[in-house]
Amino acid sequence: MTWLRNAWYQAGWSSELAADAPLVRTILDDPILFYREASGSVAAVLDRCPHRFAPLSAGRVAAGEVTCGYHGLAFDFTGACTRNPHGPVTSRMRVRAYPVVERHAAIWIWMGDPGAVDESKLPDLGFIDATPESARISGYMPTRANYQLMADNILDLSHADYLHPDTLGGMMTNAKSRTWEEGDTVTAEWLAEACTPPPAFRAMVRDGLADIWTQVVWSPPALMVLGTAAKPAGVRRTGGDEAYTLHNMVPETMTTTHYFFCSTRSFLTDDAEFSALLRAAITQAFRDEDKPMLEKQQARMAGHDFWALDPILLPIDAGAVRARRKLDALIAKEARAAGEAAGG
Amino acid sequence: MTWLRNAWYQAGWSSELAADAPLVRTILDDPILFYREASGSVAAVLDRCPHRFAPLSAGRVAAGEVTCGYHGLAFDFTGACTRNPHGPVTSRMRVRAYPVVERHAAIWIWMGDPGAVDESKLPDLGFIDATPESARISGYMPTRANYQLMADNILDLSHADYLHPDTLGGMMTNAKSRTWEEGDTVTAEWLAEACTPPPAFRAMVRDGLADIWTQVVWSPPALMVLGTAAKPAGVRRTGGDEAYTLHNMVPETMTTTHYFFCSTRSFLTDDAEFSALLRAAITQAFRDEDKPMLEKQQARMAGHDFWALDPILLPIDAGAVRARRKLDALIAKEARAAGEAAGG
Amino acid sequence: MTWLRNAWYQAGWSSELAADAPLVRTILDDPILFYREASGSVAAVLDRCPHRFAPLSAGRVAAGEVTCGYHGLAFDFTGACTRNPHGPVTSRMRVRAYPVVERHAAIWIWMGDPGAVDESKLPDLGFIDATPESARISGYMPTRANYQLMADNILDLSHADYLHPDTLGGMMTNAKSRTWEEGDTVTAEWLAEACTPPPAFRAMVRDGLADIWTQVVWSPPALMVLGTAAKPAGVRRTGGDEAYTLHNMVPETMTTTHYFFCSTRSFLTDDAEFSALLRAAITQAFRDEDKPMLEKQQARMAGHDFWALDPILLPIDAGAVRARRKLDALIAKEARAAGEAAGG
Repeated sequence: MTWLRNAWYQAGWSSELAADAPLVRTILDDPILFYREASGSVAAVLDRCPHRFAPLSAGRVAAGEVTCGYHGLAFDFTGACTRNPHGPVTSRMRVRAYPVVERHAAIWIWMGDPGAVDESKLPDLGFIDATPESARISGYMPTRANYQLMADNILDLSHADYLHPDTLGGMMTNAKSRTWEEGDTVTAEWLAEACTPPPAFRAMVRDGLADIWTQVVWSPPALMVLGTAAKPAGVRRTGGDEAYTLHNMVPETMTTTHYFFCSTRSFLTDDAEFSALLRAAITQAFRDEDKPMLEKQQARMAGHDFWALDPILLPIDAGAVRARRKLDALIAKEARAAGEAAGG
Repeated sequence: MTWLRNAWYQAGWSSELAADAPLVRTILDDPILFYREASGSVAAVLDRCPHRFAPLSAGRVAAGEVTCGYHGLAFDFTGACTRNPHGPVTSRMRVRAYPVVERHAAIWIWMGDPGAVDESKLPDLGFIDATPESARISGYMPTRANYQLMADNILDLSHADYLHPDTLGGMMTNAKSRTWEEGDTVTAEWLAEACTPPPAFRAMVRDGLADIWTQVVWSPPALMVLGTAAKPAGVRRTGGDEAYTLHNMVPETMTTTHYFFCSTRSFLTDDAEFSALLRAAITQAFRDEDKPMLEKQQARMAGHDFWALDPILLPIDAGAVRARRKLDALIAKEARAAGEAAGG
Repeated sequence: MTWLRNAWYQAGWSSELAADAPLVRTILDDPILFYREASGSVAAVLDRCPHRFAPLSAGRVAAGEVTCGYHGLAFDFTGACTRNPHGPVTSRMRVRAYPVVERHAAIWIWMGDPGAVDESKLPDLGFIDATPESARISGYMPTRANYQLMADNILDLSHADYLHPDTLGGMMTNAKSRTWEEGDTVTAEWLAEACTPPPAFRAMVRDGLADIWTQVVWSPPALMVLGTAAKPAGVRRTGGDEAYTLHNMVPETMTTTHYFFCSTRSFLTDDAEFSALLRAAITQAFRDEDKPMLEKQQARMAGHDFWALDPILLPIDAGAVRARRKLDALIAKEARAAGEAAGG
């Protein structure tokens, strides 16, 4: 098995899917058509008519149904055929439908067995809901790199010192760090004490040295919540100082990724000018620094498996390696379960 | 075996091959150089010199011979070497030559064993010859889709109701239809009685309801003759009312097709303005409606085999399915014969 | 084994690698970063960090070291890690380094076992050193064709009569020719007596008939030295009349080649105008005549193995065939030696 299928993947931000404009997005190699029903709830069906394999997106969506533009078969959000102009509707006339949930301002799709769908496995991103929209910066950046390479990038923030030296970097390499596992999550934490804060942290500590806490909590398949807090050196941190950002790496294919992010903050929450500055800084850092490096890294691997290239392992890789192993184990477990189900 | 080789394929329209301008066209993955000899007859040789594999088309054609532009070897229409500037000509110096016949304003090439060449297998397209040139509209439209998908499209004309609703569609889904086989041909027939004729049929029935007869006769590999006749409802049809169009799908590769068409008519035969209108309508329908759908269908199949995707079969697919099975059987038969020849 | 690895390949001209501008060039499918150390000597390392496989060229080169732009690991010209900001440097932290020698105005890289490196195997191109720079014309032309096809082109100069009829051709097909082997080299020689010299030779024999001697000495993998001399017919040639040109075909991949050339002359050595004319003529002949033919030849082979296509062998192919067989034997020998080393 290539993918972890019994899992929720972010298909997009809710704001990306208007009531009258369906969206086609490929996830785990499946081309999927997303649209809103009259109720506003989101439907997701394989974008391939089961009759002659035309994309359903080449037809039209109306009244909660998708009608194929080639021969007129219509399907509802459950995947059932609701209209066959050429004869009776039978139960075999189905397009694959995917369970979808909308939560935390995002659309989530279950890519595995619909019988195993489990809303309790949805990630808890309450920090997004708790933040007024004016203090959220969310976005989408498609990238030509494997999703695990992109998770490695967030799980090892020491890269900021080398890739983002002018904005975010300078404090991570010498920070105290540790990683641990808890259930299916992996956490990497850094504590930079009495450091000169990077420019990006000067909004929080205007002068002098700072204590900066950074934490990444990874959940499978490749969803990460990054927490940060910066205080003047020696000042005790409280829960209220923390700001959280979602970094979610959703595989489009093995070599391309939908990167969704959402930065939240608890200060300057109504400052639109600050939001604009922050959005520009986040976009610039990723677009001009991370994305080119990740895409070059992908290209340099030339189709080889990551482990087959025998990477050097450094202490900074602890979180990323734990996450890779966790995901491998979950995929293997799913494959075993599928094998047993097939065998029994 | 992938292709039906012992068959005639249309290589082009006669008008595409001028006396002084050779043409390279790939058919069944073979790149082939076509040129006219002094007599005007058409020669076809593999466009790859047997010496160092340079394309012969990068050389020159003169006096009925092709001379390679790399080392000067020359070949005639039989594929025999006629000049070797570097030593004696031997019988091993041959380029593959293909039997060619020019008929029905078209060039036909035999892609299989030259020893098995059989002119009686040429399709009978007498309707083209019987039509004055002023009443023929022929053309060529290369398409990035498999030739069998393109044959399916013609063999199931119910698609017109959904893909061409404003011009050709509206009467097929509810028409009486049947399909049958006769020798190696498959015929699909539709009779739409007392229907509102689609705009494209208003030249034949200006007012009121119409009876419209439509018939597609498929011959292997993927040549179809479409007959239509439209009469005011209740008026008896005679043979003279029928108009025929060739739709010929010739594989360039497994995923790209040379589509040749020739529409003929028995009315307004000298009306150049009507010809221009008709040509524009045919071109528009294919270029803007069929071709995009076929190419998207091809793309959505993502390299999978048609049957492996387990298509839903509807009554409208009867003709296309019969034609696919017929072709599969002919290819299998050819493979068996080749195996026996090799074994004996 | 695909490549002859225990051999020197030209990586470029010395003039291509400035002190402050590293160069990435792929050779035998390996992407390699070349840079100059403070001493001016050339270093070559695999352009892929052994930690996370980012291209080292996306980092920076300074003080003779390459620092990865992703996590800050630094490596010297031996491939050893010289700096790990994240912990101790261990012996496992190495990037592949390649032995490099600079000679004959060119950079040479040893692509095989560094333990087997052997400077005595460097080609002797003393004719380049013996020529004043004002009388050398060197260049680089990347080509989308396999390096052996490109060696065939030089080893069989009869092609000039067909591909370059207006400049170089006309005398080769009827010249006396012979080929022979000596050690690992293959030599092809042509003697055109009392011929009308092609335009390119009119600088040497202004009027009347000429005797023209041409010789190509091939050394593995695909380096050729072309010697020419032209004298008025019947006048005895002396060593001093000879002019030599390097034609070196270095595989970038199996289907693309770095073509390096260097023409030298012993006449008009200070004539910059003549140099400019000659450079234009060489460039034009290759760019407009050889390169298109070679690239079309490559494309027409459609991924097939050269011998699997069963080429016709002509007397003019003797040199090219000997060179191909020699190279095949050397590659097989290297594979056997590697197998024995692995087995023992």
